[in-house]
Amino acid sequence: MRVVDLIRKKRDAAKLSREEIEFLVQGATHDRIPDYQIAAFLMAVLWRGMTREELAALTEAMLHSGSVLDWSALPAAKVDKHSTGGVGDKTSMVIAPIVAAAGLYVPMISGRGLGHTGGTLDKLESIPGFNVHLRLAEFGRVLEQCRCALIGQTPEIAPADKKLYALRDVTATVESPYLITASIMSKKMAEGIDALVLDVKTGDGAFMKKQEDAEYLAELMVETGTRMGKKVVALITDMEQPLGRKVGNALEIEECIEILNGKGPADLRELCLELSAWMFALGGRTKSVEAGRKLAIEMIISGSARDTFREVIRLQGGDAQVVDDPGRLPRAKHSARVDATRAGYVTAIHCEQLGIASMALGGGREKKEDSVDPSVGLVLEKKMGDPVKAGENLCTVHYNLDSRLVHAMKLLSESFEIGDKAPPPLPLVRKIIGAGEIL
Amino acid sequence: MRVVDLIRKKRDAAKLSREEIEFLVQGATHDRIPDYQIAAFLMAVLWRGMTREELAALTEAMLHSGSVLDWSALPAAKVDKHSTGGVGDKTSMVIAPIVAAAGLYVPMISGRGLGHTGGTLDKLESIPGFNVHLRLAEFGRVLEQCRCALIGQTPEIAPADKKLYALRDVTATVESPYLITASIMSKKMAEGIDALVLDVKTGDGAFMKKQEDAEYLAELMVETGTRMGKKVVALITDMEQPLGRKVGNALEIEECIEILNGKGPADLRELCLELSAWMFALGGRTKSVEAGRKLAIEMIISGSARDTFREVIRLQGGDAQVVDDPGRLPRAKHSARVDATRAGYVTAIHCEQLGIASMALGGGREKKEDSVDPSVGLVLEKKMGDPVKAGENLCTVHYNLDSRLVHAMKLLSESFEIGDKAPPPLPLVRKIIGAGEIL
Repeated sequence: MRVVDLIRKKRDAAKLSREEIEFLVQGATHDRIPDYQIAAFLMAVLWRGMTREELAALTEAMLHSGSVLDWSALPAAKVDKHSTGGVGDKTSMVIAPIVAAAGLYVPMISGRGLGHTGGTLDKLESIPGFNVHLRLAEFGRVLEQCRCALIGQTPEIAPADKKLYALRDVTATVESPYLITASIMSKKMAEGIDALVLDVKTGDGAFMKKQEDAEYLAELMVETGTRMGKKVVALITDMEQPLGRKVGNALEIEECIEILNGKGPADLRELCLELSAWMFALGGRTKSVEAGRKLAIEMIISGSARDTFREVIRLQGGDAQVVDDPGRLPRAKHSARVDATRAGYVTAIHCEQLGIASMALGGGREKKEDSVDPSVGLVLEKKMGDPVKAGENLCTVHYNLDSRLVHAMKLLSESFEIGDKAPPPLPLVRKIIGAGEIL
Repeated sequence: MRVVDLIRKKRDAAKLSREEIEFLVQGATHDRIPDYQIAAFLMAVLWRGMTREELAALTEAMLHSGSVLDWSALPAAKVDKHSTGGVGDKTSMVIAPIVAAAGLYVPMISGRGLGHTGGTLDKLESIPGFNVHLRLAEFGRVLEQCRCALIGQTPEIAPADKKLYALRDVTATVESPYLITASIMSKKMAEGIDALVLDVKTGDGAFMKKQEDAEYLAELMVETGTRMGKKVVALITDMEQPLGRKVGNALEIEECIEILNGKGPADLRELCLELSAWMFALGGRTKSVEAGRKLAIEMIISGSARDTFREVIRLQGGDAQVVDDPGRLPRAKHSARVDATRAGYVTAIHCEQLGIASMALGGGREKKEDSVDPSVGLVLEKKMGDPVKAGENLCTVHYNLDSRLVHAMKLLSESFEIGDKAPPPLPLVRKIIGAGEIL
């Protein structure tokens, strides 16, 4: 098999065999194929796409490039949730405790923020002492003890994805829905789960701006997971504005605690309940999604979910007292406000720009090597549809450095649109994909 | 400027600026941009193509990555011919002496054979002692003394092309007409010529099998050269069968000498006259192509072209006596014949397969590092349209090793098609592109 012939085949829109795809993935992982050939192949895939069979073969080859975790000794279903990323998207820290509190296992391996979106690991690390870099054996012990564990990528999991993602990042081939699917699904399937709920974001603050693109990606992921024998459902959810009111690492942990205390913003609460409900239903914990929803509410009201969150923080070395005293989380030194220039209703929030503003404050990374400032961020005082008076505060900015504030304020002053009429409310969950095959 | 943004731009079919293209070419040439980014860019170019402005910018950036020769001190026009490659395509060794004999300068830099097509350098090296690796100073001295010189690529000429071609070869991006144009034209423009005649082959033995593809490539090359202030014309010529009767390095030199002696096959002679005529007209040596044709015939009849060929061989260290005694050229030890299995007319010759058979005998390279056997090759006893009796010899095979003969004979036995009726003759020159703007 010659690599150049396989590149040519994909370039000419021919179908690659399972053996050919395995040859490429193994060659890339073990550095037997030079990066320039892999890069050309990735661009050809972005151009020509893949059949569902090719995509399943790619995902499986990437999955089997590393270890596949085995939790069969644990006495209940293993489930997880994955989000394609957004602004203020912090459901993992709410959902994992809810689902674990009700008896299922959630072995969650997450990523860092890049670009305008935040990352679960950065948020967790704003809790003093919290260690996301557990070895797999420790990961298993935490999972066994409190039924959820939240860690970052380990070298054992899908090393092919690490290799391919690094190349995609510098060759403008990140956006291919096929490569996204193979990347996400190979890592999630390596977690050793039985079921997966996908939260595929769409709108200005998402990577998929258009709903049709989000739906296409969701279909690819659901079909690929189903072909691999897992129960998979995707929710297409709104990202035209940030989820909840808080954006920034420690601020988002604070808001998660609000939800676990039965408070917090309605949209965030609603999405956490919906995703948890699906996890319960797919994991066989409840007979229906509706019953799953009730169970999720119970876990909040009873305080069980909050207790589980406290426990997982403690087991992963973090300061568990933040759950009862969020004031222990890092706080920015200064705050500023973004004033409304006129009266009316908030008709649009430029969500990606708002995410970039939070990044500009130091809350995110421009380059992988950058460190993040856990304390900075934004608190939205107004969301879409809210009435607003001239001069009223739209958004509180929590910052440490004046120099960073200047850039962020420029972006924020252009992030809110105010009009004469309130826009019609957007549904939070736009569509559910894959439910038909399962329920 | 970030390379990934430029790849993304081309990927999304946006137009790159001259500065962006220069940045990429310089970065590639000086190894400041990693190969994997260049590879992804090349695949994006193959996918999206380029505008004529982008193509001119790419060609110029590649041209200026190295030295541009300057022959302004020489007292007549500098002209050259370039062929896109075929089987039995040996016009350079006839044309350069004809045109030089009549007073124009031909500073010809050629390539080696790869795949099923032969290369001018390999053919020249079948002349004992002939040195194609002259330094540029020696190249100039030979050019000054006999008005033509025939050498291989030097490190000073278009180093960007060397770099990009090596990557294209292993990433299935050779076939882009834009990349082909930039590669050919950057090297030809670096020769310091005033005018260029392109021989763009089409048909089974050419790289462009379809005439429309050949025409498109020809248009790109003519426009690019014209934008750079040169006179450029392209002839679309037939490659459904080998040009002339002889295929193989020494055999082709032998056939060139036949033409210079006023003999040899009609098709080869005709194409040499046509290409020379255009070189004379574009170089201002004659007022018309018709007058150029007459001049070319005179150069043959008078023996001046043959004298020039003898002279250039001598100046480049070769055995000039081969011109008068072709028996001094290397000869294969054995010969075999390909018998016609039935009577009729030759209706098709699978030209690419025939080229591969010659390569299989040792006359070409499978890999760049392979050496060639100058003595082996084929002599076509029948060409398209010729009547043939059952058992008559279609092709004489000149070979040295029995093991190589077996493979070649298998290919050759399937290379000739014989039917009941003679096919209509194909015109040798199918079309001329760019003439309107010049004459």
